[in-house]
Amino acid sequence: MKKTKFTLSALGLAVGIASSGFALNATAGAPAMSDADFEKGKSIYFQRCAGCHGTLRKGATGKNLEPKNTQKLGQTRLEKIITYGTEGGMNNFDDILSKDEITLMAKYIQQTPPIPPEMSLALMKERHKVFVDPKDYPTKPLHGRNWENFFLVIERDVGKIAIIDGDKKEVVAHIPTGYAVHVLKAVEHHNTLHTENPGRFWFVMGRDGMMTKVDLWQTPDKMKVAQTQVAYDARDVAVSGDGKYVIGGGYWPPHFVILDAKTMEPLKVVSARGVNVDGEYVNESRVAAVYDTPMATSWLVSMKELGQMWQVDYSDIDNLQITKIDSAKYLHDGFYDPTGRYFQIAANASNKMVVIDSKTRKLEAMIDVDKKPHPGPGANWIDPKCGPVGGTTHLGVGKITVWGNDPAGHPDQAWKICYEVETDGPGVFIRTHPKSDYYWADQTKTPEPEVQQSIQVISKKTHEIVKTIRLTEKKGYAAVHIEFNNDGSEVWTSVWNRADSKKPNGEIIIFDAKTLKEKARIKGLYAPTGKFNVHNRVNHVT
Amino acid sequence: MKKTKFTLSALGLAVGIASSGFALNATAGAPAMSDADFEKGKSIYFQRCAGCHGTLRKGATGKNLEPKNTQKLGQTRLEKIITYGTEGGMNNFDDILSKDEITLMAKYIQQTPPIPPEMSLALMKERHKVFVDPKDYPTKPLHGRNWENFFLVIERDVGKIAIIDGDKKEVVAHIPTGYAVHVLKAVEHHNTLHTENPGRFWFVMGRDGMMTKVDLWQTPDKMKVAQTQVAYDARDVAVSGDGKYVIGGGYWPPHFVILDAKTMEPLKVVSARGVNVDGEYVNESRVAAVYDTPMATSWLVSMKELGQMWQVDYSDIDNLQITKIDSAKYLHDGFYDPTGRYFQIAANASNKMVVIDSKTRKLEAMIDVDKKPHPGPGANWIDPKCGPVGGTTHLGVGKITVWGNDPAGHPDQAWKICYEVETDGPGVFIRTHPKSDYYWADQTKTPEPEVQQSIQVISKKTHEIVKTIRLTEKKGYAAVHIEFNNDGSEVWTSVWNRADSKKPNGEIIIFDAKTLKEKARIKGLYAPTGKFNVHNRVNHVT
Repeated sequence: MKKTKFTLSALGLAVGIASSGFALNATAGAPAMSDADFEKGKSIYFQRCAGCHGTLRKGATGKNLEPKNTQKLGQTRLEKIITYGTEGGMNNFDDILSKDEITLMAKYIQQTPPIPPEMSLALMKERHKVFVDPKDYPTKPLHGRNWENFFLVIERDVGKIAIIDGDKKEVVAHIPTGYAVHVLKAVEHHNTLHTENPGRFWFVMGRDGMMTKVDLWQTPDKMKVAQTQVAYDARDVAVSGDGKYVIGGGYWPPHFVILDAKTMEPLKVVSARGVNVDGEYVNESRVAAVYDTPMATSWLVSMKELGQMWQVDYSDIDNLQITKIDSAKYLHDGFYDPTGRYFQIAANASNKMVVIDSKTRKLEAMIDVDKKPHPGPGANWIDPKCGPVGGTTHLGVGKITVWGNDPAGHPDQAWKICYEVETDGPGVFIRTHPKSDYYWADQTKTPEPEVQQSIQVISKKTHEIVKTIRLTEKKGYAAVHIEFNNDGSEVWTSVWNRADSKKPNGEIIIFDAKTLKEKARIKGLYAPTGKFNVHNRVNHVT
Repeated sequence: MKKTKFTLSALGLAVGIASSGFALNATAGAPAMSDADFEKGKSIYFQRCAGCHGTLRKGATGKNLEPKNTQKLGQTRLEKIITYGTEGGMNNFDDILSKDEITLMAKYIQQTPPIPPEMSLALMKERHKVFVDPKDYPTKPLHGRNWENFFLVIERDVGKIAIIDGDKKEVVAHIPTGYAVHVLKAVEHHNTLHTENPGRFWFVMGRDGMMTKVDLWQTPDKMKVAQTQVAYDARDVAVSGDGKYVIGGGYWPPHFVILDAKTMEPLKVVSARGVNVDGEYVNESRVAAVYDTPMATSWLVSMKELGQMWQVDYSDIDNLQITKIDSAKYLHDGFYDPTGRYFQIAANASNKMVVIDSKTRKLEAMIDVDKKPHPGPGANWIDPKCGPVGGTTHLGVGKITVWGNDPAGHPDQAWKICYEVETDGPGVFIRTHPKSDYYWADQTKTPEPEVQQSIQVISKKTHEIVKTIRLTEKKGYAAVHIEFNNDGSEVWTSVWNRADSKKPNGEIIIFDAKTLKEKARIKGLYAPTGKFNVHNRVNHVT
């Protein structure tokens, strides 16, 4: 493991899995491919397909794509599915991939999946870099900006995040992080254990396993203070409530890594391989969401394929206590109830919202919902009838599901569906703010452009869709992700240039949260997707 | 996994791994072998080699035997090592294997190791058998014997245990269990949680992963009441302190399984695959010792290759809490201090005794000792100078190491070596009894027959070897394992017919614990090795 063939750069994408020279075998029954085409297929598969279908193609949110299945469908049918997508939540790719690339991918997925290598702690240590020594950190912000209303915006396909001044609507910096950043996290304010300046330091996880520490008090050129690669394929990251440790979850290798939050030195690797809730061993057991638990010295780590939430106690990492909470497959992402006690997470393939009691470290409830729930960062609000509720969009159906989430105050409504809202199509994100009368949902998972490009606004009071806003009509552009500003007066949405995302022609469109009218645009962004408002994320405003 | 090629029988040994039709490839640089010879090699490897060298031959207590290493040594040198053994703890095999078999094995270990299959919970459930329904269990013993002085004796190579009446020195039954049983366990009396009749029910783990439940109150023909296979290669078993669950640890697949102790229905599988204390992923992460913790609702599960002790809490198996305690490689077997709080376990390859505090669920200490400690069921006694002490034999050197183990009463001596005794050669087991002035040690790991066939008796007071007793002079027979009877007046030792162990010509030789003179013999046993006295094991008399 010490000598590696991988060359990595923050921007370089064909990194890790994509260029690691896996053993390549001709597959019986598969169309012939040149080595160069196979390598290209591997790279596109990693970027576009592995997330849902798995590196080993065993399937999860997406279907199993092993040769025995793909060869049965055959080249023509596979090309059609990739081109147009399916109703079940598979995207159309005709606006992202060329016709030749679609042909190539249909061939590629009929070959035996190459198996990527492991990654040792020693290798991670080699890849650990400190750009600013913690002793040289500034003691106050070095710019006059209101950093607590900064937005950290993922610029997906160029491996950067943009720091945007929410007051002035100016881009402060583009920081090179990992490829296709999935999530950013900071110490949250509601965590009673936090020690200093919640929201100042952010940890960014790239899809290529690159973890970056960002200091918002620095001048823009020095905001990136440390970096470590912890996996070849990864999604989530979280900080411990005491600010001592960061945890990064790997898709491949299937493991999570605990790092020193000050220096980002990797300290401990824990394998995620395990036996799922059906009693079958899972080799590609991926770590999806990772969250700090406000009420305990622990993280919640969701084991996608296992159908287990692992509550990992960080109070003594040499004697690491993990509680493996059985629930349902495939666990993806979730969010807390307003008290910070209950974690509400989607089990996609089981059509359930799973609720974990992070205080007792036990399963609290499982709510049967419609196809493939996906709340993203989620939304909590007060319903006139049911009291405190949480809501989710669905990858598999155009619907918002709303359930009671206050077992103390409203035991009769708790963990039961309060109501559902039919939307125009499947989406990925739902979001609100305590000061808003509405919650907002995107429809990014819908193949039809006019729906995919529209965001819907729903009344908390009447449960009606009060407005459908089409953000763009350009081919290959989608509307995605919603984030409020710090005081809840603005709603930020993204126009994601999926087809041509390496040019700065994506944009953020900002709406007045009351009038629902467009207020401003921020242009010149590279594939902007997820947005993280410092104040709202740190103070757990959902 | 549902349709399997394996055919299993309690006696049949070439079971599981040995006959599972692994993918067979010609290995570059290895001597040619016929399929039949390869299969024979696989079977012998499983029986004789895998324990120390691992199924995938990555090495552990024994060396790495992957083709890159074995091919470097070459056929002639490999044959010599197998024939004569080494000083480092490798046995001679010239008295067990024929010359042709040694030639075959030297060839076999130059081939690529075949990878055995996984085992699902569903398959274990298919293999679960109940012979006597728990509702039909007798309410009192059905024989007039003093079952609390029964000895349960492993008849290694015929896949049986013998039940021996310790008062009358009569064989009560030969019960077919798994192949080469490694360990037997019952609920221990000192466990404050125990509910009924400690020592009545015994759980037996075969080396082939077959777990058997034995009821000592039954008539001899009905003592075997239930059975389940939980692995293809396994070692240890333990009962929960509340008597509800049994746990079985697997070498392959690397996992442990929790079963209903009443019916032996398998309930839950937990993977042992993990990242070792050096930060490297280990695929063949074997579960060695498994013990109930008298002071907590948990088991201690030793992860050999990981160098971790996992303390597994059984109070809520749907929300299973595991504490992964980092220590050293390769963890093997161990025993409690007299209070039942501290577990003292050998880390063979690190030349350490590791001490776990099962109350705080943390590492207590690591004691540096000589080569490859191996205490087996271990021995505790009172030393005139150091107070309460524990002792171990060594696989790698002719020595007994004695350390203080009373941190409360003797903090200065605790977890420090009190003294060492040079013996004639490396051994496997040490044993004593509170009423005895001596502790006894075997020398089974020594290649020279005259030493291997002798057991040594050491004075607790003077630390001198007071007697060396040669049990046999027959070629291919070894002296192994010591167990006291219930009142400490007798010492039971085994003459293990290694070369010809499928005939009933092994025997137990019983000595007077005071005079050290032979008192009786029990003949007609098949390869008797480990012996478990009901009273001593259940009341934690070491």
